[in-house]
Amino acid sequence: MDGESERSDQTFTQFFQFALPGGFELSSGDRLADVTLAYETWGQLNEARDNAVLVFHALTGSQHAAGHNAGIEGLGERWTEEMQAGWWDDFIGPGKAFDTNRMFVICANYVGGCFGSTGPTSLRPDGTRYGAEFPPITFADCVRSQVHLLDHLGIERLHAVVGPSTGGMACINFSTLFPERVDRVILIGTGLRATPLHRIHNFEQIRAIESDRAYRGGRYEPPGPYDGLVLARMISHKSFVSLRAMAERSRRQVVAQDVGEAWYGVSHPLESYMMHQGRKFAARFDANSYLRILDAWNRFDPLADAGVDDYEALFSGCAHQKYLIFSINTDVCYYPEEQREIASVLKSVGVEHTHITVHSDKGHDSFLLEPHLFGPHIRYLLDGGLLSR
Amino acid sequence: MDGESERSDQTFTQFFQFALPGGFELSSGDRLADVTLAYETWGQLNEARDNAVLVFHALTGSQHAAGHNAGIEGLGERWTEEMQAGWWDDFIGPGKAFDTNRMFVICANYVGGCFGSTGPTSLRPDGTRYGAEFPPITFADCVRSQVHLLDHLGIERLHAVVGPSTGGMACINFSTLFPERVDRVILIGTGLRATPLHRIHNFEQIRAIESDRAYRGGRYEPPGPYDGLVLARMISHKSFVSLRAMAERSRRQVVAQDVGEAWYGVSHPLESYMMHQGRKFAARFDANSYLRILDAWNRFDPLADAGVDDYEALFSGCAHQKYLIFSINTDVCYYPEEQREIASVLKSVGVEHTHITVHSDKGHDSFLLEPHLFGPHIRYLLDGGLLSR
Repeated sequence: MDGESERSDQTFTQFFQFALPGGFELSSGDRLADVTLAYETWGQLNEARDNAVLVFHALTGSQHAAGHNAGIEGLGERWTEEMQAGWWDDFIGPGKAFDTNRMFVICANYVGGCFGSTGPTSLRPDGTRYGAEFPPITFADCVRSQVHLLDHLGIERLHAVVGPSTGGMACINFSTLFPERVDRVILIGTGLRATPLHRIHNFEQIRAIESDRAYRGGRYEPPGPYDGLVLARMISHKSFVSLRAMAERSRRQVVAQDVGEAWYGVSHPLESYMMHQGRKFAARFDANSYLRILDAWNRFDPLADAGVDDYEALFSGCAHQKYLIFSINTDVCYYPEEQREIASVLKSVGVEHTHITVHSDKGHDSFLLEPHLFGPHIRYLLDGGLLSR
Repeated sequence: MDGESERSDQTFTQFFQFALPGGFELSSGDRLADVTLAYETWGQLNEARDNAVLVFHALTGSQHAAGHNAGIEGLGERWTEEMQAGWWDDFIGPGKAFDTNRMFVICANYVGGCFGSTGPTSLRPDGTRYGAEFPPITFADCVRSQVHLLDHLGIERLHAVVGPSTGGMACINFSTLFPERVDRVILIGTGLRATPLHRIHNFEQIRAIESDRAYRGGRYEPPGPYDGLVLARMISHKSFVSLRAMAERSRRQVVAQDVGEAWYGVSHPLESYMMHQGRKFAARFDANSYLRILDAWNRFDPLADAGVDDYEALFSGCAHQKYLIFSINTDVCYYPEEQREIASVLKSVGVEHTHITVHSDKGHDSFLLEPHLFGPHIRYLLDGGLLSR
């Protein structure tokens, strides 16, 4: 776009490292000797330090939520062109839903991820790579690690946390494990548990990766289980977009595909579209990391994380919080009934909340593509607007 | 059940072989030097030879629709215990929907299949196996080959054809390519085309098989791409049953699974249920054969098969036929709207038809499990009942 000149929207990933005595303990009981979090920020933290918004990214997202980031140290070719554009650039910036003229916005890559935070592709203190030996993580682990980042940044209490999709699950962990550290919670297309449909799609993907012989129990050399990752993404992609959108998009994209030893000739535009989505993903993601995140999704259990028995008890410390919950009417990944359940629980415990169902033909991915449907409600909440109890 | 003694419901697969001058030409232009059809029959052909019903089996079914068949020559262990029980035993037999006291019922394995009809596992005239070199087939090819079987049996005109699922697609080919050879057509949970959702699920399955390294472009030795077949079935299975049914069934079936080199521990009952379904299938099916059938589904095009431009023209020779069309309200494989489209076309050309939507919590598989929902309508049609035009 602007060629050789420096772009005005350039961002840089920063790295925060911490080491606790005895290591950072994960939900599994495993300990990480030290933890690095790759994160980015936008806007300025005010003097009162009360204008911070923490964004939890979705399943395969990164810390790079807005602006342009041309490269991250150590990632090499996995930081593809697709990754260089902030995934939520339409929502974060001056005058946008998260207005960086007034808010200080933070987004960090999850522990277990592969975009700079400690994960399977990271080196251990002894200089070897974790690889297959990286322990299981939970979204609660991601949340706890990011609380250390907030301490580091001198932020005691967030103006808001926000998360779409699995990022919303992390938000629920944050607001219920650390209720005194946040005032507003924005949940988009998410839910309180892994549903049977989530489990089915996740397990298909896990098997696609693990039954690729190049996976070798996680002890692979690059490119690793490439075909397995391609298939995994094909499987998940259909739940992110509407079938109509897939059919529409694929009409504009007919590319013959070389798929190696195959009898079936990829011939329909929909098939070449699926291959394209799978390959874009396989180029940018690490298989061990993806397995950790799918596992975290399957085992998401905010009740167990908080040590309580029911959802009313889960939100019992949240009376001071305000929740803005979005459903997308065509979402077939997290169905609207999953968000209705959250609203219903909040109502039963008397927590202030608004449940908005946006109507879109874009399915789950609407949260990436249609800021006009979400932005006004987000701004109203962040400005201190009234919700119902 | 009855141990050593001979069962009263024992059936035997018969083989009909034909060779045409120049070979049997497929839609692809390829020719099979000779064709064997594995088939079974129930009941007696009457003197007028007008009481015959031809059943087209679904995607991975066989000619063994009713009774018990302990083994088929040449199939070995692929004729598993699951296959030995007739897949439509609840529908075919004395006093059942297809009453074998009055009807003569025929079912044949498709050309391209792997249960005795000529397919990738068959030997060529030169004694070598077709394997990877078996040509593509269409449902129209299956239909044309079975017309030779009808000639052999001396049946000029069928009382009815019936097919569930992809079997219904073959029925549509039969009734429109050979309208004068059938009076009644029973379509269950089927459609006029491969929808985007069919294509997505089919392509995922194709990639699961073809990216298994043991597939080797179809030039595999047994067990071939076993993991790929397991995953393929896991992918398709969820569209055959309701999610509720899967969750229900899986509660009763928790089995730890050895899945080879894996990091993710199969732990949830739903996952072990999925593995179980996948493995049952991989034990009984040939990968090259399955690819041919998925390909036939993707390329199903009754307009092209009949050489016409629109659906009205397709059914223009069918004025003397009666159609009974079933939808299942919870079907997520072939959605009810797909059958509504068939009914709508028949209405527009003035062909007698009834469209029944059965209500079931079992999804697509209702056609296997709930004869009481379908039987009365089928008997009424076969008895000459009135339909609307």
